[in-house]
Amino acid sequence: MKALGEHWIIEFYSCQNQEALKNRKICERIFIEAAKTGGFSTIGSFFHQFKPHGVSGVVVIEESHLSIHTWPEHGYAAIDIFFCSENTNPHKTLEFLKSAFQPQKVHIQIHFRGLKHYLNS
Amino acid sequence: MKALGEHWIIEFYSCQNQEALKNRKICERIFIEAAKTGGFSTIGSFFHQFKPHGVSGVVVIEESHLSIHTWPEHGYAAIDIFFCSENTNPHKTLEFLKSAFQPQKVHIQIHFRGLKHYLNS
Repeated sequence: MKALGEHWIIEFYSCQNQEALKNRKICERIFIEAAKTGGFSTIGSFFHQFKPHGVSGVVVIEESHLSIHTWPEHGYAAIDIFFCSENTNPHKTLEFLKSAFQPQKVHIQIHFRGLKHYLNS
Repeated sequence: MKALGEHWIIEFYSCQNQEALKNRKICERIFIEAAKTGGFSTIGSFFHQFKPHGVSGVVVIEESHLSIHTWPEHGYAAIDIFFCSENTNPHKTLEFLKSAFQPQKVHIQIHFRGLKHYLNS
């Protein structure tokens, strides 16, 4: 890999599973399972319920982090998958999240983080 | 704003403050203060110390999150500032982080998250 980490910036639009966008506990359960599915090792997690609605959550993993911020009123979730191991499967994590939140439209951009060209040797 | 959130993807290369890259407590203290400096409201934080070295940490804020992953052996830190309020000052947070970690090279890319064009009304 030409970089230390890979960061997937993911947009879930028009999610059909409104409960998952609204409920901290459901959201956290999905994320813990999504991490496991991709072979990531969870170190800790922090999920917060906003009032009147919305969830922010982060799962810190051995390989970096997964995060989500939801806007249930727009059916939208901003999701990040940031990892630094080639022995994991972020595609599986993404597919798990898609089946859980059921977005009608998904945008993904991938960033390389910590380009080796610029690193101290 | 044409989107729900703004996400700054930041690379700190050749950081001169090695202790901040290595020590969970120092790193967390810097981040809590950096959030405050930019007018962000901290809800919770989770920082982890890796062995032999490296720190992963997240500060969940009312406005979304700040995160860091460090590779002290490369003098490198991957930092994210994700926010959804126009009444904050991420520039101040970034300047605070720069003065704390003292990177010799900084790369920044800004993403808009949750484009209004695609949102459920």
